[in-house]
Amino acid sequence: MERLKRKRWLESMVSCRRDIHAHPEPGWMEYRTATLVASRLSALGYTVTTGKRACMPEARMGVPDAETIRTHEERALKDGVDPIWLEQMKGGYTAVVGVLGGAKPGPVIALRFDMDCVEVGESDAADHLPRQLRFASERPGLMHACGHDGHTAIGLGAAELIAERAGELAGEVRLLFQPAEEGCRGAKSMVEAGWLDGVNYLLCGHIGVKSSTLGEIVASVEGFLSTTKIDAVFRGKAAHAGESPHLGSNALLAACAAALHLHGIGRHGDGATRVNVGMLEGGSGRNVVPAEARMKLELRGETEALCEYMVRETGRILEAAAALYGVSCQWETVGSGMGGEGDRSLIPLIEAECSRMEAVGSFVASMPIGASEDATWMLRRVQEQGGRGVYMLFGSPLAAGHHQTSFDFDERVLGTAAELLVRLVFACPGWPEESDTGPAGGKE
Amino acid sequence: MERLKRKRWLESMVSCRRDIHAHPEPGWMEYRTATLVASRLSALGYTVTTGKRACMPEARMGVPDAETIRTHEERALKDGVDPIWLEQMKGGYTAVVGVLGGAKPGPVIALRFDMDCVEVGESDAADHLPRQLRFASERPGLMHACGHDGHTAIGLGAAELIAERAGELAGEVRLLFQPAEEGCRGAKSMVEAGWLDGVNYLLCGHIGVKSSTLGEIVASVEGFLSTTKIDAVFRGKAAHAGESPHLGSNALLAACAAALHLHGIGRHGDGATRVNVGMLEGGSGRNVVPAEARMKLELRGETEALCEYMVRETGRILEAAAALYGVSCQWETVGSGMGGEGDRSLIPLIEAECSRMEAVGSFVASMPIGASEDATWMLRRVQEQGGRGVYMLFGSPLAAGHHQTSFDFDERVLGTAAELLVRLVFACPGWPEESDTGPAGGKE
Amino acid sequence: MERLKRKRWLESMVSCRRDIHAHPEPGWMEYRTATLVASRLSALGYTVTTGKRACMPEARMGVPDAETIRTHEERALKDGVDPIWLEQMKGGYTAVVGVLGGAKPGPVIALRFDMDCVEVGESDAADHLPRQLRFASERPGLMHACGHDGHTAIGLGAAELIAERAGELAGEVRLLFQPAEEGCRGAKSMVEAGWLDGVNYLLCGHIGVKSSTLGEIVASVEGFLSTTKIDAVFRGKAAHAGESPHLGSNALLAACAAALHLHGIGRHGDGATRVNVGMLEGGSGRNVVPAEARMKLELRGETEALCEYMVRETGRILEAAAALYGVSCQWETVGSGMGGEGDRSLIPLIEAECSRMEAVGSFVASMPIGASEDATWMLRRVQEQGGRGVYMLFGSPLAAGHHQTSFDFDERVLGTAAELLVRLVFACPGWPEESDTGPAGGKE
Amino acid sequence: MERLKRKRWLESMVSCRRDIHAHPEPGWMEYRTATLVASRLSALGYTVTTGKRACMPEARMGVPDAETIRTHEERALKDGVDPIWLEQMKGGYTAVVGVLGGAKPGPVIALRFDMDCVEVGESDAADHLPRQLRFASERPGLMHACGHDGHTAIGLGAAELIAERAGELAGEVRLLFQPAEEGCRGAKSMVEAGWLDGVNYLLCGHIGVKSSTLGEIVASVEGFLSTTKIDAVFRGKAAHAGESPHLGSNALLAACAAALHLHGIGRHGDGATRVNVGMLEGGSGRNVVPAEARMKLELRGETEALCEYMVRETGRILEAAAALYGVSCQWETVGSGMGGEGDRSLIPLIEAECSRMEAVGSFVASMPIGASEDATWMLRRVQEQGGRGVYMLFGSPLAAGHHQTSFDFDERVLGTAAELLVRLVFACPGWPEESDTGPAGGKE
Repeated sequence: MERLKRKRWLESMVSCRRDIHAHPEPGWMEYRTATLVASRLSALGYTVTTGKRACMPEARMGVPDAETIRTHEERALKDGVDPIWLEQMKGGYTAVVGVLGGAKPGPVIALRFDMDCVEVGESDAADHLPRQLRFASERPGLMHACGHDGHTAIGLGAAELIAERAGELAGEVRLLFQPAEEGCRGAKSMVEAGWLDGVNYLLCGHIGVKSSTLGEIVASVEGFLSTTKIDAVFRGKAAHAGESPHLGSNALLAACAAALHLHGIGRHGDGATRVNVGMLEGGSGRNVVPAEARMKLELRGETEALCEYMVRETGRILEAAAALYGVSCQWETVGSGMGGEGDRSLIPLIEAECSRMEAVGSFVASMPIGASEDATWMLRRVQEQGGRGVYMLFGSPLAAGHHQTSFDFDERVLGTAAELLVRLVFACPGWPEESDTGPAGGKE
Repeated sequence: MERLKRKRWLESMVSCRRDIHAHPEPGWMEYRTATLVASRLSALGYTVTTGKRACMPEARMGVPDAETIRTHEERALKDGVDPIWLEQMKGGYTAVVGVLGGAKPGPVIALRFDMDCVEVGESDAADHLPRQLRFASERPGLMHACGHDGHTAIGLGAAELIAERAGELAGEVRLLFQPAEEGCRGAKSMVEAGWLDGVNYLLCGHIGVKSSTLGEIVASVEGFLSTTKIDAVFRGKAAHAGESPHLGSNALLAACAAALHLHGIGRHGDGATRVNVGMLEGGSGRNVVPAEARMKLELRGETEALCEYMVRETGRILEAAAALYGVSCQWETVGSGMGGEGDRSLIPLIEAECSRMEAVGSFVASMPIGASEDATWMLRRVQEQGGRGVYMLFGSPLAAGHHQTSFDFDERVLGTAAELLVRLVFACPGWPEESDTGPAGGKE
Repeated sequence: MERLKRKRWLESMVSCRRDIHAHPEPGWMEYRTATLVASRLSALGYTVTTGKRACMPEARMGVPDAETIRTHEERALKDGVDPIWLEQMKGGYTAVVGVLGGAKPGPVIALRFDMDCVEVGESDAADHLPRQLRFASERPGLMHACGHDGHTAIGLGAAELIAERAGELAGEVRLLFQPAEEGCRGAKSMVEAGWLDGVNYLLCGHIGVKSSTLGEIVASVEGFLSTTKIDAVFRGKAAHAGESPHLGSNALLAACAAALHLHGIGRHGDGATRVNVGMLEGGSGRNVVPAEARMKLELRGETEALCEYMVRETGRILEAAAALYGVSCQWETVGSGMGGEGDRSLIPLIEAECSRMEAVGSFVASMPIGASEDATWMLRRVQEQGGRGVYMLFGSPLAAGHHQTSFDFDERVLGTAAELLVRLVFACPGWPEESDTGPAGGKE
Repeated sequence: MERLKRKRWLESMVSCRRDIHAHPEPGWMEYRTATLVASRLSALGYTVTTGKRACMPEARMGVPDAETIRTHEERALKDGVDPIWLEQMKGGYTAVVGVLGGAKPGPVIALRFDMDCVEVGESDAADHLPRQLRFASERPGLMHACGHDGHTAIGLGAAELIAERAGELAGEVRLLFQPAEEGCRGAKSMVEAGWLDGVNYLLCGHIGVKSSTLGEIVASVEGFLSTTKIDAVFRGKAAHAGESPHLGSNALLAACAAALHLHGIGRHGDGATRVNVGMLEGGSGRNVVPAEARMKLELRGETEALCEYMVRETGRILEAAAALYGVSCQWETVGSGMGGEGDRSLIPLIEAECSRMEAVGSFVASMPIGASEDATWMLRRVQEQGGRGVYMLFGSPLAAGHHQTSFDFDERVLGTAAELLVRLVFACPGWPEESDTGPAGGKE
C-alpha cells in the first residue's frame, strides 16, 4: 500500500472511531453504529445481512424493555439514520454481517467485532483526550469506555482492504459486527442464526485489556471464565413500618439475604468459581416496608460445569431467600459466555505475520485471562465443527482501565490491528487443499 | 390443728421435699416421684388414676425417646419403685390424679402441682444448703432447680389435711400432679384426658418467681405469654471440606441462617412477641462439611394470635433456611402454653383467707408476669366451661434464680402454701347454690 | 360570622390550599409556601419572624445538600417569590412565626402547622380530583400527599379570624409554621429557637390519619412512638469481580448484613420497638465489587428509652457490619421525634367547643396512634415548663392513604379545623388568673 | 530375608498394629503408644529421646486442657505403662525420636510416623473386621480410623530391619514418631525441637488416602493445601428470653453470624481457598439468651499466602461478628500445616526400589491431593536447608473412608510399606560423596 493511501486509510479509521465514540449506543440499540457499518459494507461490495436474520430473536439475551428500545429508535431517526436500515433492525436486531465470496474455493474466515457502548458517563476532566479533541460522548451516561468504537473502526478498516483485494480471495470472508457484547448478551444470537456454521477460521480480538504496550500483539488469550449474568427482582408487600409492619412482606431483606447467601456459595473442589452481586436496590420510603428490590449478579466458573454449579446454587438460593421473607422472586439470564481457549496451532501463523509488520514491536504467544467474553460462543461453535479460532489482544496504553470514565486508548492501535487481520485473512492456509479436518459445511 | 400435730405435718412436708430433691426426675420420667404421690394419695383415701388415663398419650409433648425412657424405668426399679405402679406409668405416663368426693353436693375444685426437675447439675458449693444438709441431688446433671419438689410436697401436705376433713367436704376435690411442666409439655395431656372438665375452681401456684418475701402471697398472676416450643433438626450431606466441599450439603449453615432469620422475624403491630433459639449444635468434625444440626427454640406472643403468627413465620423460615443450603429440616412442637389471666373475682376470697393466716405477712392482689406456663391450658379449659381459676405465687427468698445451680427456697413456704390451699378448698363458694353460671359437667 | 363572609373565608382557604398543592416544596426548601405565609401574616398584623431566628441552624436535621438547596432557591425566584423574604430564608431556614399580642395579660397560646410536601409523584388518573380540578402538582416527583397544604391553609384561615378579633385577645398567640415535618426534621429547630418557651397552650393537629369521617374531631392522640431516622453510607473498594475479587472490599454486602442484623435487633422486655431499613442501594456494575452502598432507616420505641436502645444497637451493628467486610460506615441522624401524650385535662374544653359547632358531627376524646411526629418536640418543651398541649385529628375521608399518589382529602375539613382552633384560642382559660402552675416564662 | 523370619516380622507388625488399634489414644496423650515405641526402639539399640526435648513445648498446638491430660495419664498408668517413660512424657510431650548412627559418614535420613487416633467411636457392625477379630477399640469414642496404628507398626517394623543392618549404615537414621497429627498439631513442635535440622532425606507416607489398590505405591503427593485450624469461643450474657431478652447478649447468634460470614469470605483471584466451620454449639436452655457458643473451623489455601489471606479475613470476621451482638470472641490457632510438594528428583530412586519389590504391583510417580498434613512443616524445614523429601502413599483398599466408623485397611500393606522404607534408607545416595548441595548440618 502506498504511503499516502495508507495515511488516508488510517485517518479514516480514526475519524470513524471518533464519530462512533461521540455517539455511543448501548447493546441491542446500536442503530446508528450498525447502520453506519451496514451501509459502508454495502458500498464496499459485501453482501449485507442485518435484523432478525443476522441475530436469532430467541437467542438474544438481556434485551431492554420495549419502551427503552423505542426511545432509542426515535433518537436514531433524529440522528438522521437511514429509515430503511432502521426498519430492518427495529426491535433490537442490530447485528450486521457482511459476506464477501472469493473467486476460487477456499476456507471460510470469520472476523468478529463488537459495537456497543457502556453505561458510564464520560469524564469531563480537562486532560481527557476525547474532551480536548472534541469527540467525547454527546450522550449523558453513555460512553465507549471499553474500546468497541475502536473495534468497529478496525472492522471497517479491514473490510476496505479486503474488498480491495477481493480478486485474490479464496473461499469466503464473513465480517460479524456483533451487538450487545457488554454483559455477554449478543454473540449467541449470531451463532444461533448460523453465521459461525462452516467457519474454518475465526479471528477475534480486543484492544488493551492485559496488553498495554503499543505495538504488542498477544496471539491467543487462554482461560476465559464461563459466565452467566442474572437479573432478579423480589416482590413483597408494602406496609407502614410503625403501625403495622406485620402486614408487609419485606422484599429488600429477601434480596439482602440472597446477596449474602449467594456470596456464601461453597467453593467447588474441581476449580475456581466466582459470584458477584454487582448492584442491588430496593425500597420506596424510609417508613415503608420495602415491597420491591432488584439485583444484578454474575456467576463464573473455570469450566462450564463449574458455572452451571453456580447457576444451580443461585436458583435455589434466590427462591429460598424469597421464601424466608414470604415474597416472590423472578429471575432471568441476561447474558452468558463460555469458557474456552484459542487454538494454539494458529499461533505460529500469527507470529509469522507479526514478524512482517513494522508496527508490531513485541509478540506474545498466549496469555491467561480471568475474565469472560461472549465471543466464546462463536469460538465454541467453530471448534465443535472442526474449525479453529483465536482471541487476540491488540496492545495499547490505556488512559484508565476499561469501563472507567477516563478510559481511552492510543489510536495508532487501529491500523496495527486492522493490518494484522487483513494479513491473516490472506495467510490462512487454504482449505481444503491443506487440511482434511475442516467442518462439514465449510466448503463452497 | 393442734400445735404438735402441725409441727409433725410441717416436718413431713420438709422431709418429703428433701427426699424428692435428692432424687430429681426429668419430665415424663418422674417414676419415683409419681409412685410416691400415687401411693400416698391411695393411703389417704383418694381414688388414684395414673398412666394413660391420667394423661392422654397423643396430647403429650416433648416426650423423650424410647431408649431414654427405658433407662429411667430401669433406674426407677433399682430405686425400689413399686413395680405395680411403674407398670401403669411405663412409657412416659407419669401423671397422677387423686379424687376425693364430698359427702354432699358442691363445687368441683382442682389443685395442680408439677413434679419434674430441670436438666441442670446441682451446685457443690460449700454454702449451698441442700449440700450442707445432705439432700442435694444424687443424680448428675439433674436438679430440682425450679421448686417442683416443693410443689409436690405442698400437694401431699394439702392432700393430708383435706383427707382429714373429708367429712366436711362438699362436691369434689381433684389433686392433679402433672408431669413435664418444664418446656410446657405435660398440662395439655391432662386436659385432654378430661380432668379439667367440670371443674368449678382451679387453684395453681408457684414458689418464688417474682415473689421473694417469705409470708407474701400473690393471689393472681396476669399476662402469661402464649408460647410454643419447637425442636428442629437439619440434615444434609457430609463431605471432605478440603477435597470436595461441593459434594456436601451444609446442615450447620442452614441452622445458623435459620437462627439469624428467626431472630429477624418482624415485630407485630398488635403486641409483644418473642423468639429465642436457646440451643444449637451441629457438625461432626472440623474438616467435614456438617451433615446435621439441631436447635431448640421457643416462640411467645402477648396473645395466642401473636404466638401463632410467630409459629407461622418460623415454619416458613425453617423450610426456607433448609432450602438455602439444599438440606432438609424437620421440626416438631415439643411444648406449648397459652396466654391468659386468673379470675380477678377470686381475689377477695383469697385475700380473706390470707388475712386469717398468721404465716401470711403481705398480700398482693395481682402481678404481671412476662413468662409462660402450661397451667394455662388447664385455666383455659376451666374458664371456657364457665369455671374460675387463679395462678398464685407463694413468696420465698431464693438462694439463686430459678433454673440456676444454686437455686433454693425457704422451706417455711411449704406450710404456708399448703395451708392456704386447704383453706381455699373449704372456702370456695358452694356451687350450685351460689352460682348459676357453672360449667355443664360441674355437678355430680 | 355572617354567612357571606364565612363563605368567602372558606373559599379563600380552599384556593390557598390548591395553590400550595400545585406548588409542592420539600422540607427546608418551602420558599414559596413560607413566603406566602410570611407576607399574609404580616398583612394581617402579626409580627413575623423567619430565617435563622425562626429555626436554630444547628438543630435542623436532614437538611439537603447545598446544591439542592440552591436549585430550589433559583426555582423559587423564577416562581416570583419576593427576594426580600427569600433572602432571609436562604440556606434552608424556612420556618415562619407570626405573633399577635393581646390587649390584656393572658396565656400564651401556640398553634403549629407544617408546610412541606412528600417526594412522591402525583397520580395522573382521570378520577384524581386535583387532576380534574386542575390543581395537581406542577412539579414531577413532588406532591402534597400528606395534607400539609391543608394544614397551611387552615393556619392562614385561623390567622385571619384571630386577627379580626385581636381586640378580644388576652395574652399572646403564636402561629408556628414549621418546615420539614416529613422525616421529623424541623420541629426541634423551632423549639431550640425558643418559640415554645413560655407557651401555656399548644394546639397541633392533622387532617385524616385515623379519623376518616368528615365532621369528626379527635381531641387528643396518644402513644406517639419515639423515633430516630438515620442515613448510612458504606464505603469499600471496587475491584474486577472475575480477575481479582480479593482486591475489593464489598460495601454492598456490608450494607446487606447491616440490614439483616438491624432487623434482628432483639425485642425489648419493656415495650414495643420498631426498625425499618426503608431504602438501600449499592454497586456500580454487575462485574465490579461494589464500592459503595447507602441506606435509609428508621427506629422507633414506645418510650424514648426504648428508642435510644434501638439507636445504641444500631450504631454498634452498623460499625460491626462494616468491619465484617473491611469497609467503613458513616451515619447521621436525619430526623427524630419523641414519644408523648396530649394533656387529657384539655379534652373537656375541646369537647365543649365542638359541641357548639354545627360542622362537628362526632367527637372522640382520645385515640391511640402507632406513628411518629416531630410536633412531640414542641409538646415536650411545653409540658416540661408546666404548659399543656394536644395533638388533634381533623376527620376527613381520604381518596388514598397518606403518602400515596392518589391521596386527597375533603376540603370541607379546612373550615372545621380552622374554626375549632380559633374557638380554642379564645376559650383557653385565662392564665394566670385561673391557674398557678403555668410556666415561668408564660406571663407577660 | 529368609522366609520364616519375614513371616515372623510381618506377624509382629500385624500384632503391634492390632494392639495399638485396640488402645487408641488422642493427640498429645499417646502415652501407651509412645511408651511402646520408646521401649521397643531402646531395645533395638536406638538412642531414644522423648518428652520436652522431642517436641518443643511452645510449638505444640491444640493441646488439651490439663484436666483431660491428667485423666489420660491416670488411665495410662492403669494400662500398665512404665512410669519411668510416662514421667518424661507427662503434660503432653509424647513425641518419640529414635536415632541410629551409621558406622561411616553419610546422609541423615529421617522417617516420620504419626501415632494418634481420631475421636470417632468404632463401628460395632458384625462384618467390621476389627470387631470380628476382636481387636476393635476398647475405648468408647476413640478409634484408629485414619491408619496411624498401621503407621506406627510400619515404623517399628522398619526400625527392626534397619537395626539389623546397622553395620551397613552410613550417616544417621532418625525415626520420628509424631504425636497429634490429627488437626495438624504436632509436627511443628518436633521441627522446632530441631529434629529436622541437618536432614538430607525425609521419608513420609500414608496408608490409603487416594491409593486404594494393594501393592500400589505413589512416590510423591503434590499440592498439599496450606491450612490453619482455629477454635473460637463467643461469650455474651444470659437473660430470660421471655421477660427481659434485652438484658442478654446473644453469643450464639454471634457465632451463627460468624459461621455464615466466614463461609462468605470472597474468592481469591490467585487460587483456591477453603473454609469450613466444622462444629458449632451454643446455648444452655431453650428459654435463656445464649451466653456462650463455641466453634471449630479450618481454613486452607493453595499457597501459604492464600491461607494467610483466609486467616486475616477470619480474624476480622470473628471480631466483627462478636461486635454485631455486643459479645466477646476469643480464638486461637490449634493446628496448622503448610503447602508444599515432594521432591520429584527422588521419584526415580523410589521407582527403582519398587521395581525390585515383589509386593509392589503398580507404581505412580505423583498424585495431586486436596488435603492438608502437618508433615509439610518437616518437609519445608528439610527443603529450606537443601535436603529433599517425599510424602508417599501406600496403597490399600479401605473398608470405609478415613475417619469413618468402619474404616479399616488391608494389613498386608504394612510389610510393603516397611520394606520400601528400609530399602530407601539404604538406597539413598550417600552424601557427601554424591551430592554437594546438602544442608549445612547434615554431615557428621
